[in-house]
Amino acid sequence: MEVVCLDLEGVLVPEIWIAFAEKTGIEELRLTTRDIPDYTVLMNGRLRILKEHGLSLGDIQNVISEIRPLEGARAFLDRLRELTQVIILSDTFREFASPLMRQLGWPTIFCNSLVVDESGTITGFTLRQEDGKRKAIENLSRMGFRTFAAGDSYNDLTMIAAADAGCLFRAPANILQEHPELHLSTTYDDFLETIRGFLNG
Amino acid sequence: MEVVCLDLEGVLVPEIWIAFAEKTGIEELRLTTRDIPDYTVLMNGRLRILKEHGLSLGDIQNVISEIRPLEGARAFLDRLRELTQVIILSDTFREFASPLMRQLGWPTIFCNSLVVDESGTITGFTLRQEDGKRKAIENLSRMGFRTFAAGDSYNDLTMIAAADAGCLFRAPANILQEHPELHLSTTYDDFLETIRGFLNG
Repeated sequence: MEVVCLDLEGVLVPEIWIAFAEKTGIEELRLTTRDIPDYTVLMNGRLRILKEHGLSLGDIQNVISEIRPLEGARAFLDRLRELTQVIILSDTFREFASPLMRQLGWPTIFCNSLVVDESGTITGFTLRQEDGKRKAIENLSRMGFRTFAAGDSYNDLTMIAAADAGCLFRAPANILQEHPELHLSTTYDDFLETIRGFLNG
Repeated sequence: MEVVCLDLEGVLVPEIWIAFAEKTGIEELRLTTRDIPDYTVLMNGRLRILKEHGLSLGDIQNVISEIRPLEGARAFLDRLRELTQVIILSDTFREFASPLMRQLGWPTIFCNSLVVDESGTITGFTLRQEDGKRKAIENLSRMGFRTFAAGDSYNDLTMIAAADAGCLFRAPANILQEHPELHLSTTYDDFLETIRGFLNG
């Protein structure tokens, strides 16, 4: 039995925080894990900015409801789910993920959760665990699975290294330069063929 | 973050082997894990019977393609997947599961695989691991999840015991008598409310 673990943002849907930054015009919110590898540093900065601007969870969810999956992502995911088991491993939050999961046909996602007060202000966040993507791969291996992992960002590198096989998908230049040993897919067709090679191998 | 793990046969779809026994008229194939707790003993017996009758994987798949999910199962599962993450933990085989997963909207399933020769004869089976349902719960706990497990059979009892919470769904009398401490749901409405209680607890 095999399981394929995919990053969400940049692989199946656009970067949520970049879309939010574009809507609100707050340039500082454009930073992602591509830019700041330490996720806790990145998130604490985001929460500070949201507080300064008086923006609530509802404001962010309104933007997310307008985000569509990347072109071809749903068809790719549908084909993949007929071939093997798929789990999305993401550092996003369940409060952000639902409208996107609905559009993707409710795939399984392992992610984090926000702490929200009664007024709808995001006051903090709860990571399911530190380095959760890597640990998910390790625990899936303990369940007897052969594992494949793919993503585009710094926070995907430990899960790709921990998996039996993996690749990058539309990763930025700095990651490609640092990891020339990893296969890069830039189209969903090549991505699916790469995974098929793993499943048949 | 929570994850809900559900047994497949008897909970979301009919017992596959019973449906197959009814189609073929082979009474011996009606036995399930409800009757014989040792799964390896049960499966080796099934494979022997199939061989005696000259029945191939294709014959079984033809029957499975005619099986429909239990009445209300798809609607229950759709509602549950909007609330939380769901993984089906089953002792069935991926070769049997696909036509059922298609009808259920491709939920994630962790199960086993068959060994099939070139003629289509089932020559053996590969368990992902021994006591895989329990170990799946334990490894999901290691990923930082609160876990809920539900099923109807002997092979579900260890996963229910390992989970943070759980219940039985339409279990037979012998299991109910042996486990009066477990909540029993007999309708999908009660089942969903029981799980909601866990999610909100």
